[in-house]
Amino acid sequence: MTAEPVGLGRRERRKARAREKLLTAARQLIAENGVSALRIGDVTDRADLGFGTFYTYFESKEALVEAVVADTLTGLASSIGATAVAASDAARAAADAYRRFLRFATSEPELARLVVELNRADAAFEDSVRPWARETLEHGCASGQFAIEDIELALVSISAAALAAIRAILSGLLEPGPETESRGAEMMLRGFGVDPETAHKIAWLELPDIDTAS
Amino acid sequence: MTAEPVGLGRRERRKARAREKLLTAARQLIAENGVSALRIGDVTDRADLGFGTFYTYFESKEALVEAVVADTLTGLASSIGATAVAASDAARAAADAYRRFLRFATSEPELARLVVELNRADAAFEDSVRPWARETLEHGCASGQFAIEDIELALVSISAAALAAIRAILSGLLEPGPETESRGAEMMLRGFGVDPETAHKIAWLELPDIDTAS
Repeated sequence: MTAEPVGLGRRERRKARAREKLLTAARQLIAENGVSALRIGDVTDRADLGFGTFYTYFESKEALVEAVVADTLTGLASSIGATAVAASDAARAAADAYRRFLRFATSEPELARLVVELNRADAAFEDSVRPWARETLEHGCASGQFAIEDIELALVSISAAALAAIRAILSGLLEPGPETESRGAEMMLRGFGVDPETAHKIAWLELPDIDTAS
Repeated sequence: MTAEPVGLGRRERRKARAREKLLTAARQLIAENGVSALRIGDVTDRADLGFGTFYTYFESKEALVEAVVADTLTGLASSIGATAVAASDAARAAADAYRRFLRFATSEPELARLVVELNRADAAFEDSVRPWARETLEHGCASGQFAIEDIELALVSISAAALAAIRAILSGLLEPGPETESRGAEMMLRGFGVDPETAHKIAWLELPDIDTAS
């Protein structure tokens, strides 16, 4: 997200950086105080830009919030996804990715709330995880760890289940915390055909830290 | 749905029956031609009621369609749920219920489309399946067929996964038909802790017909 845009002139680069600063500031403010307390003046203050410049980058506060949500989803999916695809053990990669997604509900509840409240959140979430999730599942089938007859069905099912679990954690229906995350990952691995003992072991391993703050 | 309302006066009974006739007619017409072709005059014709009486029962065509969706969800959940709760084998009951829900996408695509397009379809779907689905999962845990540590998490996950599969069948992402239904049920049973061989056997048994047209 914060990589320097390439192939742009100086002016375009400066504009892209300013937009990025506004997004980062808004993201921080939403995480701190929730979206209802978000004020454009606070965003431009935090980004160290003039109030008047805001409308060069975003049409409205709503457009900014939408961009934050899209940015959050993409950032989360790409950091978790890159870690998963780089892992040599597909079952471990799938379990860790699932647990990290659920942890997002606890670590950044205000942003997570925005994501699940998004109209058609399921489609946006699925689109953002599909590419690397597919790679992880195919890798697990090739290695013999998974027995999945229909990769597409597994992808659709697990991404919907993870999003629903995030929503249920936020609404208080499910207990937040590592136990729910590991239980869900264990159920997922068993569903993918991992034997129950191995599924249990993998789902309850210590979860290494990665940077999901994009 | 078509049971005679009790505890009402004659006038109220007649009104309830007329409303029911309009709902049934609308449901049939939507199933036949889709919701965009639905005309109030066709609904009252099919219900054998005068056009003018329509507004005694519904504020608008939209209100009628909403009532059809609510009715469809309730009817589907209660007929599938009653069958599941009555079954002695919880694994079989869960697999059959999952398969019947997915079959709805193929047997009544226009109504299924309305259900998944509902705003917050996930919450409505979850609410309608939760009571009997919980009973089936608890029954399976008590009988030792399931090893589920967190019933709530399993409920949330599987109802979201089933709804997402219905959506994916309707959008053409997943192949419609019995194979997808059985594969999903097999994955679900394995997730619930049923051993893979038994899960396979149960998920591919012949599915007895039940009346889901309420």
